[in-house]
Amino acid sequence: MLSKNQIKLIKSLSQKKFRSQHGLFTVEGIKGISEFVNSSFSLNQIYSLENVFDVDDSKMTLVTDSDLKKITQLKTPNMAVGVFEIPKSKVIDNSRLIVALDDVRDPGNLGTIIRLCDWFGINDLVCSKATVDCFNSKVVQATMGSLTRVNVSYVELDTFLFNSENEIFGTFMEGENIYKADLPERGVLVLGNEANGISKTIENKVTKHLGIPRFGNLKATESLNVATATAICLSEFKRKII
Amino acid sequence: MLSKNQIKLIKSLSQKKFRSQHGLFTVEGIKGISEFVNSSFSLNQIYSLENVFDVDDSKMTLVTDSDLKKITQLKTPNMAVGVFEIPKSKVIDNSRLIVALDDVRDPGNLGTIIRLCDWFGINDLVCSKATVDCFNSKVVQATMGSLTRVNVSYVELDTFLFNSENEIFGTFMEGENIYKADLPERGVLVLGNEANGISKTIENKVTKHLGIPRFGNLKATESLNVATATAICLSEFKRKII
Repeated sequence: MLSKNQIKLIKSLSQKKFRSQHGLFTVEGIKGISEFVNSSFSLNQIYSLENVFDVDDSKMTLVTDSDLKKITQLKTPNMAVGVFEIPKSKVIDNSRLIVALDDVRDPGNLGTIIRLCDWFGINDLVCSKATVDCFNSKVVQATMGSLTRVNVSYVELDTFLFNSENEIFGTFMEGENIYKADLPERGVLVLGNEANGISKTIENKVTKHLGIPRFGNLKATESLNVATATAICLSEFKRKII
Repeated sequence: MLSKNQIKLIKSLSQKKFRSQHGLFTVEGIKGISEFVNSSFSLNQIYSLENVFDVDDSKMTLVTDSDLKKITQLKTPNMAVGVFEIPKSKVIDNSRLIVALDDVRDPGNLGTIIRLCDWFGINDLVCSKATVDCFNSKVVQATMGSLTRVNVSYVELDTFLFNSENEIFGTFMEGENIYKADLPERGVLVLGNEANGISKTIENKVTKHLGIPRFGNLKATESLNVATATAICLSEFKRKII
């Protein structure tokens, strides 16, 4: 049986300010929790209907259905809630291609982008402070475990780009055709906010404007979703390696 | 003031069986409705707080806040609900690249794929009968107007592919590296279900197995989301044209 204080703590982790205060975040479901258990993340505690995890007994609390309902952030709880420690940011490796996000707000988009970074072997994802928190439970869910393999750092993006010695790429409507551009193995690729794209401040730091050509009705077609734009750009940066 | 019967009819369009029965679907918000008004779709009626649309008076019903709340499918109604006629499927143009979906279930994924088809100049999207309905309001919302420019047909996918005289491409874990494959200007590109990929029956019709190479940790990385896989494939099919 969980104490009121335990329930209060776990529930509070749905909010960023309490995640930061406690240095903890939650993962739900057996598959997701197992991915984090088998990664470099430190486990705080698992609360589960059954003990199906390969962890020390002291890290495992069996709970009832009714307790699980009190601590889940899902409509229908998924067997178990795992609480993990938010890791310290690792050093960013500037010798490789880095993806940077300028105020991406949608958890689903951030989750998909983390999954894409994992797929395309991007180690470092650098986010502006106003980008949605990667330990938001919707993001964690959408990454399908990829969050354990991509180093996500929140920085003053402006300053980070100012200090970068590599080329800084951004996607814009009128940029150079990405299919013909010279794309190096190191650099920073910046993607912008869902509604406004890359902000003026960040655009000033971009050294090369890229564009994804449209093949449809040129007047009418809306811009691409930021996650699909990321997919196309990363594919283009990486395709020549193989 | 709307009659009870009008409210009942409009609300019923949230369900596929009533959309089919009445041959009608809804679009919400001024921008979205305007895109459909300015397209080949036939308008049935607009229900709006204000008359901001360039349509015949007989097609425009001013409603109160309270009526709008009764007919919206959104949590927060967005100024107006437009009711349009579901068009007859157009003839599928086999002389170009066609995208086919094998039981894609998520409205957001289908919406994103329709948007991608629009961007990449794909005229025909062919869906298996079990693929989510493109006139589902979440799909309509996610397409951002692209649904007015892409011809979506629901078919017996198995039979459609059997009768196709063009090459049929599908993406698989162990397929040929898409970055090196010969990709023609006509053909059918099949994408599979979110959980199970392309079904066995449909795989039997595929004449060329393609694969998107992974650059990350080969053992651990999960598969790509179907919408991002579509983005990468379409980019690859189209990139050589420009």
